Amino acid sequence: MSTADHQQTDSIFPQGDSAPADYFTGQAWVKVLVPNDTTFNSVIGNVVFEPGTRNNWHTHPCGQILLCTEGIGYYQEKGKTIQVLHKGDVVTITPDLVHWHGASPDSWFTHIAVSTNTQKGVVDWLDRVTDEEYYGLIK
Amino acid sequence: MSTADHQQTDSIFPQGDSAPADYFTGQAWVKVLVPNDTTFNSVIGNVVFEPGTRNNWHTHPCGQILLCTEGIGYYQEKGKTIQVLHKGDVVTITPDLVHWHGASPDSWFTHIAVSTNTQKGVVDWLDRVTDEEYYGLIK
Repeated sequence: MSTADHQQTDSIFPQGDSAPADYFTGQAWVKVLVPNDTTFNSVIGNVVFEPGTRNNWHTHPCGQILLCTEGIGYYQEKGKTIQVLHKGDVVTITPDLVHWHGASPDSWFTHIAVSTNTQKGVVDWLDRVTDEEYYGLIK
Repeated sequence: MSTADHQQTDSIFPQGDSAPADYFTGQAWVKVLVPNDTTFNSVIGNVVFEPGTRNNWHTHPCGQILLCTEGIGYYQEKGKTIQVLHKGDVVTITPDLVHWHGASPDSWFTHIAVSTNTQKGVVDWLDRVTDEEYYGLIK
């Protein structure tokens, strides 16, 4: 499926810029909705993942909340089974929990990511999610 | 327009419970997506407003962010002109700013409300928004 297949007309937020290749496997886009500051101590971004795309394993010193708005996604905490996400699902990720998220193999996926208490730090990136991990062959 | 006219099938989140009549003029519904706690210091709710419905004037000691997802809404800061809101708009409301929000007269409106730093307090309710204020006759 090419990027041109993703119809943006019904999306709530603009697609934004390409996500950093160092921390994503596949193509994703990030639109910052609320930049980090000392008033809200929060950063909010909309993330669109092409099918098969996922971010690296990572942690949030501040925790993070995902609000799923379109498509079908994957979420995995280290050592646990992959969870399938749908529109309307809400994921609360506690501080320092090792995890990754992204699209499922055959569907685009969009979520809003809300990081609060950002004075504690927003994200620490770890290793890429291998194909064996993404397809659930190893946890 | 009756409540039955609001098609929920395309909505991202469930409609939730009726908003408290003391703080809303008209009919609205609130679905708490993330309850307040001491890990995220945040509360996130999805709010659906019937046409013409608005909340009271109020302030947020912690500030609040609105992510507009459906319909056409109104937002007003005390002493300023009403701003019309559409899907994709993001409103950042600084701490202690007197304001209100709701649907426009002829459209349903849905937003996600994100309160951060909730250890400072979430909301202080003030007077109802009169029809004269809602229709922009007085600020």
